[in-house]
Amino acid sequence: MARTPDARKKLREICKVAAKVFYEKGYDGASMQDIAEAVGLTKAGLYHHVSSKGTLLFEIMNYGMDILDETVLAKVKEIPDPRERLRRTILGHIDLVVRARDMEITVILHENRSLKGTLRKKINARKRAYIEYLEDLIARVQEQSGMPPKLSPHIAAFAVLGMINWLYQWYHMEGAVKEEEISSAYVDFFFRGLLGNP
Amino acid sequence: MARTPDARKKLREICKVAAKVFYEKGYDGASMQDIAEAVGLTKAGLYHHVSSKGTLLFEIMNYGMDILDETVLAKVKEIPDPRERLRRTILGHIDLVVRARDMEITVILHENRSLKGTLRKKINARKRAYIEYLEDLIARVQEQSGMPPKLSPHIAAFAVLGMINWLYQWYHMEGAVKEEEISSAYVDFFFRGLLGNP
Repeated sequence: MARTPDARKKLREICKVAAKVFYEKGYDGASMQDIAEAVGLTKAGLYHHVSSKGTLLFEIMNYGMDILDETVLAKVKEIPDPRERLRRTILGHIDLVVRARDMEITVILHENRSLKGTLRKKINARKRAYIEYLEDLIARVQEQSGMPPKLSPHIAAFAVLGMINWLYQWYHMEGAVKEEEISSAYVDFFFRGLLGNP
Repeated sequence: MARTPDARKKLREICKVAAKVFYEKGYDGASMQDIAEAVGLTKAGLYHHVSSKGTLLFEIMNYGMDILDETVLAKVKEIPDPRERLRRTILGHIDLVVRARDMEITVILHENRSLKGTLRKKINARKRAYIEYLEDLIARVQEQSGMPPKLSPHIAAFAVLGMINWLYQWYHMEGAVKEEEISSAYVDFFFRGLLGNP
């Protein structure tokens, strides 16, 4: 639905709070009443902004994908060298998951199966576009290396997505491993796995 | 609690069915009533076997870890070469996630945060033992290579766990990519990432 700038801003606020509630109680365990209370609205007030819990989950994931676009992809798109662009994309994606400033990212990763029907298809289309972007970039890096590809860009893309996305399950900012250590170890590991030694 | 062999068998049956219910409805969305119905017991009958929903989740995860021990780790423990033992461990772990014969594995991966208190600590101790087993094996493979380690066994272990565990989110047996293709691509990718070219 078309929204005024004010309504969009309010919706983003609701998404931020609702993402935290979904993170804490699980999508299935959280009620619209819980979310209304956390946002400081009546239930009727919440329904004024979003028509159902499913739509709210969709808006959160959509917002999460916007964050990926705005904070990672928009910043690397002018980099001409495919390897450097891929490297910076991986670093940006790691940063999003590791810092989890935005709980929307965790909700995208964890509540994948909770979304149903058309809304699920829409989010899956955005995810697929990102995966295709990675596959394309990986294929170009392989080509640039001048060596025969060691594995399909499709499998390589899912390998790196798994390495990065799984971080939300175990990585703690306060732990002994610093973000820079993970980032540089992951990037080097990935490029060795993809191309072999330089 | 101590159980007779019959009671253990019945509990495994309940775990298998309950894992499917948790997978479909989510842990928070599934009630003990849903599970009792799926198992073909009254709610009182179900409580005779398991004292709470949390305990049931614990039993499912514990059973999933038993499956890992019995179908993967027990079979490789006699292999003397660390690299071959690691390779076979990775293949066995991929097979568990990809085939998901046992929904318990998916529940372990997905409902990590749903378990609380002492029961969570017990499962985490079993997970940690597996991670330490991987780290130890990785360190021995690095040593055996005679080259200076390219990354810490700790980070390498989480990289490979992420690659493999994330498969539950995207891999479909019926899809175009066959298990053998994934398995051999993942193993080669991992060892190149760990050691560089042979």
